Amino acid sequence: MTKSDKIPDATITRLSIYYRQLELLEFDGYRMVSSEKLAWLCQGNPAQVRKDLGYFGEFGIRGVGYDVIDLQAQIKKILAINRDWNMGIVGVGNLGLALLQHHNFSARGFKCVAAFDNDPDKIGADLPSGLKVRDIRELDAAIDELDIEIGVITTPASAAQAVANLLLKANVNAILNFSPTRISVPECCLVQNIDFTVMLDILCHKLDHQTTLQHL
Amino acid sequence: MTKSDKIPDATITRLSIYYRQLELLEFDGYRMVSSEKLAWLCQGNPAQVRKDLGYFGEFGIRGVGYDVIDLQAQIKKILAINRDWNMGIVGVGNLGLALLQHHNFSARGFKCVAAFDNDPDKIGADLPSGLKVRDIRELDAAIDELDIEIGVITTPASAAQAVANLLLKANVNAILNFSPTRISVPECCLVQNIDFTVMLDILCHKLDHQTTLQHL
Repeated sequence: MTKSDKIPDATITRLSIYYRQLELLEFDGYRMVSSEKLAWLCQGNPAQVRKDLGYFGEFGIRGVGYDVIDLQAQIKKILAINRDWNMGIVGVGNLGLALLQHHNFSARGFKCVAAFDNDPDKIGADLPSGLKVRDIRELDAAIDELDIEIGVITTPASAAQAVANLLLKANVNAILNFSPTRISVPECCLVQNIDFTVMLDILCHKLDHQTTLQHL
Repeated sequence: MTKSDKIPDATITRLSIYYRQLELLEFDGYRMVSSEKLAWLCQGNPAQVRKDLGYFGEFGIRGVGYDVIDLQAQIKKILAINRDWNMGIVGVGNLGLALLQHHNFSARGFKCVAAFDNDPDKIGADLPSGLKVRDIRELDAAIDELDIEIGVITTPASAAQAVANLLLKANVNAILNFSPTRISVPECCLVQNIDFTVMLDILCHKLDHQTTLQHL
């Protein structure tokens, strides 16, 4: 890997998006793609595509472009998604249930192998995916037994930190946090927050700003 | 508003996060907060807090900090969340249903006022929120009637672009896109993509990179 110690998060995000477009290109029968076309498909710009990929080596052929299949393999390797990852979901509410049935996860190698809750009415219940809801008190043992590397928090905000602490104690160092609060974790733990209302705040700010500009 | 034409997205995101911590501070009885404490609570740094707020004016008192209530009001105004926004959800699958019941939306002034689907088995069904699922063919009229400004797409990837086109045609210029694909929209339309698997890709890349570094 070249210059890979300081890869911006935005580059990693874009690689993930390039990858999705490359899949569609392959599906449509394309063998090669130029940085111009890839950029256009991803609503980016060609120089950015070349720069993003340039962090990791030389993948394209000047004047020809990138091999659609080869570049997918390279990006999968860079993102470390060239293998499956086991996830455990904590909090079997509406959102947890929706995620457990989200086909896109398993299609991309993210396997929901366990679901946990602390509600006696939910524990033991059969899930559409074939799993049974486990008692949160089994978290530690289940993580070890099922080789869970990613914890997904879909509890209310009030329970999120306690769940994060349990995951850390069980040596899960990657957390996807859907609860509408920030959690404190040591530096060794990686957290991706997905707070829908933060996204809405950004949208509203831009919408309002745009409207204001139109009326100037 | 000062210097507000070139506010980075990251600043807007952080403002939204500051706002959530200010709410908690108010709840805990705090009247003032320093940039140091606010930064610590948000896992940021104090210079960044001051810079972010500095885009919009002078809110703090040197050596004392920010007024917890006043700064909330200011941020609400900046983000344009000092009023309610009406949203329509298109796609009443598992995720759509989960979002319709997501208390955090309405608590923050994002009102789900309509839900649409094209599945005859779903159209007319009563939702837990008290709404009925509407026929997607009613989208145009309902958006006008209910003053919907934000469209939320929770359809499969294959339907997302068609839904986006319908929303645009009905003059909805802000879209929160949960479908696992990018949608093409004209520049006047704002899109926030929330693709869970992109977030997982980022997490996996970092986790793998961290593990590699540990073994060097």
